[in-house]
Amino acid sequence: MKKVINVGLLGMGTVGTGVVKLLTANSHNYEQKVGAEIKIKTVLVRNPDKVRAIASEAKITTDIQDIIGDPDIDIVIEVMGGESPAKDYQLAALKAGKHVVTANKDVMSKYGRELFAAAEESSVDLMFEASVGGGIPIIRPLKQCLAANNITEVMGIINGTTNFMLTKMTLEGVDYNSVLAEAQRLGYAEADPTADVAGFDAARKIAILASIAFGSRVTVDNVHVEGITGITPEDICYAGELGYIIKLLAIAKDSENGIDVRVHPTLIPIDHPLASVNNEFNAIFVRGDAVGETMFYGRGAGELPTASAVVADVIDVARDIHHGVSSRILCTCFENRPFCPIENTQNSYYIRILVDDQPGALAAIAGAFGLQGVSLHSVIQKSQIGRFAELVLITYDVNHLNIEHAIDTLKGMTVVNQINSVIRVVKE
Amino acid sequence: MKKVINVGLLGMGTVGTGVVKLLTANSHNYEQKVGAEIKIKTVLVRNPDKVRAIASEAKITTDIQDIIGDPDIDIVIEVMGGESPAKDYQLAALKAGKHVVTANKDVMSKYGRELFAAAEESSVDLMFEASVGGGIPIIRPLKQCLAANNITEVMGIINGTTNFMLTKMTLEGVDYNSVLAEAQRLGYAEADPTADVAGFDAARKIAILASIAFGSRVTVDNVHVEGITGITPEDICYAGELGYIIKLLAIAKDSENGIDVRVHPTLIPIDHPLASVNNEFNAIFVRGDAVGETMFYGRGAGELPTASAVVADVIDVARDIHHGVSSRILCTCFENRPFCPIENTQNSYYIRILVDDQPGALAAIAGAFGLQGVSLHSVIQKSQIGRFAELVLITYDVNHLNIEHAIDTLKGMTVVNQINSVIRVVKE
Repeated sequence: MKKVINVGLLGMGTVGTGVVKLLTANSHNYEQKVGAEIKIKTVLVRNPDKVRAIASEAKITTDIQDIIGDPDIDIVIEVMGGESPAKDYQLAALKAGKHVVTANKDVMSKYGRELFAAAEESSVDLMFEASVGGGIPIIRPLKQCLAANNITEVMGIINGTTNFMLTKMTLEGVDYNSVLAEAQRLGYAEADPTADVAGFDAARKIAILASIAFGSRVTVDNVHVEGITGITPEDICYAGELGYIIKLLAIAKDSENGIDVRVHPTLIPIDHPLASVNNEFNAIFVRGDAVGETMFYGRGAGELPTASAVVADVIDVARDIHHGVSSRILCTCFENRPFCPIENTQNSYYIRILVDDQPGALAAIAGAFGLQGVSLHSVIQKSQIGRFAELVLITYDVNHLNIEHAIDTLKGMTVVNQINSVIRVVKE
Repeated sequence: MKKVINVGLLGMGTVGTGVVKLLTANSHNYEQKVGAEIKIKTVLVRNPDKVRAIASEAKITTDIQDIIGDPDIDIVIEVMGGESPAKDYQLAALKAGKHVVTANKDVMSKYGRELFAAAEESSVDLMFEASVGGGIPIIRPLKQCLAANNITEVMGIINGTTNFMLTKMTLEGVDYNSVLAEAQRLGYAEADPTADVAGFDAARKIAILASIAFGSRVTVDNVHVEGITGITPEDICYAGELGYIIKLLAIAKDSENGIDVRVHPTLIPIDHPLASVNNEFNAIFVRGDAVGETMFYGRGAGELPTASAVVADVIDVARDIHHGVSSRILCTCFENRPFCPIENTQNSYYIRILVDDQPGALAAIAGAFGLQGVSLHSVIQKSQIGRFAELVLITYDVNHLNIEHAIDTLKGMTVVNQINSVIRVVKE
């Protein structure tokens, strides 16, 4: 039995620093749990002059071969982020017979299949709890704790930046551009915020969760994505009046028509468990045929929360090494299920329309919806704006294609000045 | 490698029936996940005439030796409940070299140490995810997903019966006796409801969670327990006015004075994540030094939710068998920490007092608190009742002993007619 388990760490950014802090501060606890010491032997960095809080005995290098080629290194932790060179480094580590722990959603959501195949070939572990939901346990719960279930739905707030922004917009009534500027000032949003606000970050994470939940590979390319850039204080206010809150949800459903995976702003009822998840917090709601509804809540990002998930994986791998076992649980995508095209998805919709304030306008609009088979759940005429009136409608569950056709029809009507918003609604 | 993993099932009540249903309905999925078939070979029942929904090929027996003494049986599932004979059967199974999966909180909260020692001696697995929180993943998250943390606090709503009752009392203003009668009629409460309403059920569960969270053995005898029998609609109403909801919380803290574990009714702020956990739902809030705040939410009881947790453990054990490894994670109580006596705990308190409605009454009472070092956060004079007035106070954090002394002093004051309620408050 090994007395020391050696780790090679790729990347010393925010998460890497957190990993070093935890493996240093709590090392005594980890040794008790594992039965062996976990030691950072070598750290790969881009700029060795910038390295700060490193355990003194660790070697600093800029050459990946110092880790991949070192037979003493058992586990490679990849916390560089981004696709390249992280994916190549992971693959090289797996092929060299090293266990890999990663926080990399970009790589896992795109190259999961290839990496798992390499891990299986080399009989090593590949763990990625930190790739979704930061410190929130969600990968292991889906793979192990809920393994007895057919999971039918995963729905979550899994991007902290947009949740911070929408929370501010909801509580303080500020507009999108102001709150984006504040998020950037506080370091919650990047200078180029596209990956967050356009929904791509959440799309990568839901692809990972859906793959595990449904046992069928989902990559980021299979996710329908809409961001929050079009959300206005008016929509948030009207939603509130109707008993809803607007959140950027990542949704994966195992429907009769195939796997349906998407990211978009959504109205959810204020008494839904996800509605009170505010600011930078994340939460993931999971529905299984045996367990019913469950939810997992916590900090979805940050140095120590993310490091918490990375080091938990390292401890698990170290336990495997200590017990002489590996690859107990690798890829669980045993099926190859079809996808449900976005056109075939069923949803309720919130629609805000600016119309001519004249007799018969509402009747004409309701008629246009009716012709496309869209039933209206509620219609509210809102404030007068000059010669216009604002209509807020919520539909019953309808086919996406019917809504598109109805919207097209509306756009051609003289009574309709503008379609301001079309946002999906989750009813329960 | 084994092609078939044989299970012996002890008990065919609610949970046992759910286990049989899942292992039958989803067996194909499980075989993919494990790499071997999981088969119920033998079922122990008290009355063989009553057995219904059994997989046809399973043998029904009333003799435990048909399971313990059968060398073909790999895993024993114990879902009989109660201490005896469940504990003896578990012990016998472990000593016979069989892996054990149990949903038994009574046994695990009292005999955990002895059972883990037996499992270690025989190099087998002992898993008990279903013993707390029904289908909610919480044992494995604490043991594995949050293993990188020093857990400082676990706080939860872990008894569905009392949460159903308190939710009804809060939303409908009904009194304790009416809601208890309704809970009994609906089958949520037993004919003798003591274990639930007096807090003993929650005490067993928090003992299990605290042992794992703090890495030091906590048994049910170490838990300070107060039930909900004294909670009135008046308290719930006043709490609501002050921005709080009353829940039966199980709380475990790792404080400087030692481990502090208790179950009692508690005022929690309405915006706390636990405040919106209603009816039969459970939720467990965990605070760790790295991860910060996390919460786990779902159904805390019921046939299929509990079976979901039991079968997840069975799948995990089966994976271990398939990979030729065992007892990767057994007892994690490496420390032997002291306990904090209830007298030394710190809390904020809600206190409702009936006083003579005369000038100087409030000053006298405030003075009595002051003399005992108890600072008041808020004081509200409530409704007039004849010549009496009702005072509702909330204190700052104070030592439990100081509150006891202050209450003793108040009881001796002529201006005080009655101390109606003393309930702890959680501020965040």
